[in-house]
Amino acid sequence: MSYGRTFPLWRDMAADWDAYTRAPFLAALADGSLPHATFHDYLAQDYRFLIHFSRAWGLGVAKAGSPAEMRACARMVHALMDTELSLHVDLCGKAGIPEAALIATEECAGTLAYTRFVMDAGYSGGFLDLLAALAPCIFGYGEVGARLMAGRYAPAYAPWIEAYGGAEYQDLCRSMAALLDRAVTDRLGDTPAAVPVWRDLGRTFATATTLEAGFWPRLG
Amino acid sequence: MSYGRTFPLWRDMAADWDAYTRAPFLAALADGSLPHATFHDYLAQDYRFLIHFSRAWGLGVAKAGSPAEMRACARMVHALMDTELSLHVDLCGKAGIPEAALIATEECAGTLAYTRFVMDAGYSGGFLDLLAALAPCIFGYGEVGARLMAGRYAPAYAPWIEAYGGAEYQDLCRSMAALLDRAVTDRLGDTPAAVPVWRDLGRTFATATTLEAGFWPRLG
Amino acid sequence: MSYGRTFPLWRDMAADWDAYTRAPFLAALADGSLPHATFHDYLAQDYRFLIHFSRAWGLGVAKAGSPAEMRACARMVHALMDTELSLHVDLCGKAGIPEAALIATEECAGTLAYTRFVMDAGYSGGFLDLLAALAPCIFGYGEVGARLMAGRYAPAYAPWIEAYGGAEYQDLCRSMAALLDRAVTDRLGDTPAAVPVWRDLGRTFATATTLEAGFWPRLG
Amino acid sequence: MSYGRTFPLWRDMAADWDAYTRAPFLAALADGSLPHATFHDYLAQDYRFLIHFSRAWGLGVAKAGSPAEMRACARMVHALMDTELSLHVDLCGKAGIPEAALIATEECAGTLAYTRFVMDAGYSGGFLDLLAALAPCIFGYGEVGARLMAGRYAPAYAPWIEAYGGAEYQDLCRSMAALLDRAVTDRLGDTPAAVPVWRDLGRTFATATTLEAGFWPRLG
Repeated sequence: MSYGRTFPLWRDMAADWDAYTRAPFLAALADGSLPHATFHDYLAQDYRFLIHFSRAWGLGVAKAGSPAEMRACARMVHALMDTELSLHVDLCGKAGIPEAALIATEECAGTLAYTRFVMDAGYSGGFLDLLAALAPCIFGYGEVGARLMAGRYAPAYAPWIEAYGGAEYQDLCRSMAALLDRAVTDRLGDTPAAVPVWRDLGRTFATATTLEAGFWPRLG
Repeated sequence: MSYGRTFPLWRDMAADWDAYTRAPFLAALADGSLPHATFHDYLAQDYRFLIHFSRAWGLGVAKAGSPAEMRACARMVHALMDTELSLHVDLCGKAGIPEAALIATEECAGTLAYTRFVMDAGYSGGFLDLLAALAPCIFGYGEVGARLMAGRYAPAYAPWIEAYGGAEYQDLCRSMAALLDRAVTDRLGDTPAAVPVWRDLGRTFATATTLEAGFWPRLG
Repeated sequence: MSYGRTFPLWRDMAADWDAYTRAPFLAALADGSLPHATFHDYLAQDYRFLIHFSRAWGLGVAKAGSPAEMRACARMVHALMDTELSLHVDLCGKAGIPEAALIATEECAGTLAYTRFVMDAGYSGGFLDLLAALAPCIFGYGEVGARLMAGRYAPAYAPWIEAYGGAEYQDLCRSMAALLDRAVTDRLGDTPAAVPVWRDLGRTFATATTLEAGFWPRLG
Repeated sequence: MSYGRTFPLWRDMAADWDAYTRAPFLAALADGSLPHATFHDYLAQDYRFLIHFSRAWGLGVAKAGSPAEMRACARMVHALMDTELSLHVDLCGKAGIPEAALIATEECAGTLAYTRFVMDAGYSGGFLDLLAALAPCIFGYGEVGARLMAGRYAPAYAPWIEAYGGAEYQDLCRSMAALLDRAVTDRLGDTPAAVPVWRDLGRTFATATTLEAGFWPRLG
């Protein structure tokens, strides 16, 4: 599960990758022991998160270097706003949380920290800085979904696991990997790790990973 | 042909509205006397223009104030990148200009001035500033297309006239008007012209109109 | 201690104003019971905070609407980078923390959340949105400094109290109030609270206040 | 007159460098044959230009990668707003153009094109993209000033020639060169021309050069 060339190299630079992708929250989600209230809190924050994440991909359209990059970012906005966000609202609806409640949820500090970090990385940096801040979310959920779905999991949160472990989301991860690898090569060449900005990009990826780790609700 | 409430008020503040929408270029386009080479130069610059215009709507996704505004901006990116740009490439292809030639065309000063003015208005201001800079293009082409199509026109440039005068583009103008009117009311209330920023928005619209007027290739 | 017209109105819209300006951290700072290690942690984070805060005022130069606003923002960058940051380094030096240690300090989630919230509010919104995000920091420290300095306080943290309660910082608060009041009037007129964006600005101020409240280190 | 390592390499990539730095306007300025009205038109546009240029350096503060870069950008804002702009107003005052007239001057298309290109390059790209767009102005005026001052020149426009050829402005060029060279090395290493983004930076520099060439008023 490497999703291209760039991601595994950045992942190695992120001290909190396991804290993020192997959080107690995820074990509890897989074995079904996660309290429903905790899951709902997570979903409500994730709804707010997805809004800002879509904004970040919109910014990607503005910062892209070619029509192909612009189209790839626009597809991500579409996938998030028209597919993922709708699924989210459905999932919440089944759990008894109406969309109005999602919209009214106050963002917690963890959501604010991660989403605004992504936006600032994008606005203050260039296209690669934006991708480096977005990458941990895309690929981390892909890794988690694939790993949980490959094992045994309780039915309680199966729709979530199957959404991220399923073919559609895994395809999206591979598209993102292709976009990222191409964007890196176009700007930094074939040995990007030899260019000093690589270290800055890795640091952005690592900070975003830490903030993702902090995004999971704490368990009792 | 008013396209909502806000546009006609801003149009009245733009001294160059007629210089833009009743330019000699357009009369020559309607009566078929426009030299093909001039039209091709225009198309090649307009291709570059559309790229930046799509970037601006991507920025709109990032700057929007609600999911509904985000979706409206994302639809514009989609309409521009996946419909208008493709039609453009087709139109150019029929005129003997391959897409590679479009991409290789250097932006002229007029294209640079208008597109970068839009981007800076959006980045430096808020969502309404961005819309004010984008509005003259959307609505001006709508007015021009509708007016030319309602009259007699030579077959030479009929596809262009019918593209902007046709139902699909006119619908897009009405969607944009709804987005704009709602965005204005949400931010400035029911008497927006009484709020001082109205004057700044009108000035942004007026400058963008002047730059549009300068975008048409000069005749003979 | 009202610092102009706009600030007290926004302060009334911020539920966490007291949680921020009357935090236990501040009582402990005044009576000298605050552990030195806690104060040093705070200073190290505040150093990082000031860097981003300076960046935000630099962005203010880019987003300002007049030479006078640009100059006011530039003066804030200067005050922060050349005065406050230097004093900070001095204060830390006396406390045994060299500047290299400050630079090497990892930003904690609270610092990330507040600073990036400010940057995104500025980049995604207009000049007033940026000011609304910056205001709680400026005026809150002014209120706290003036109140603590007017009462009895232990010598342990007297330099900090006297820095924010002293004439120079209080003058800076009044300059900021003049800039803010004028910027509001220029854009929203004489009854700004009647314009719908007022509510959005108040919400930005309130969120920034909440993030400031979360910025103080927790006590034992 | 090389002003560091990066500038001469970028200059070689800018086809219009001579069109810019050896424009007929400059020959007429040196031999005193330039009509006063033309010079005044230029000064009025340049006033507007300097405002946006200052905004761009403010954006540089927000996009910088270190306190040292932030301070260098802040010094440029200060030099432009508090020194160059004031000198400009003086020069115009002596020429009978009051500051109110400068502020009221409409920006012409050339001013709009160059200034907004710089802002968009900065907002959409990273710190180096911003510097690449700003560099032709700084170094070009430095080259022109030094060359004209080293030759014979009529007294009519001597203050302008001596302002840009003089020690203070030449020092500023060398500071900018040091900032640029260091920023390039920190991000792209010791062989930056081998990194693909180098080509994009050179293209940004070349476009800005072309827009500078178009900024001089045309002669009779």
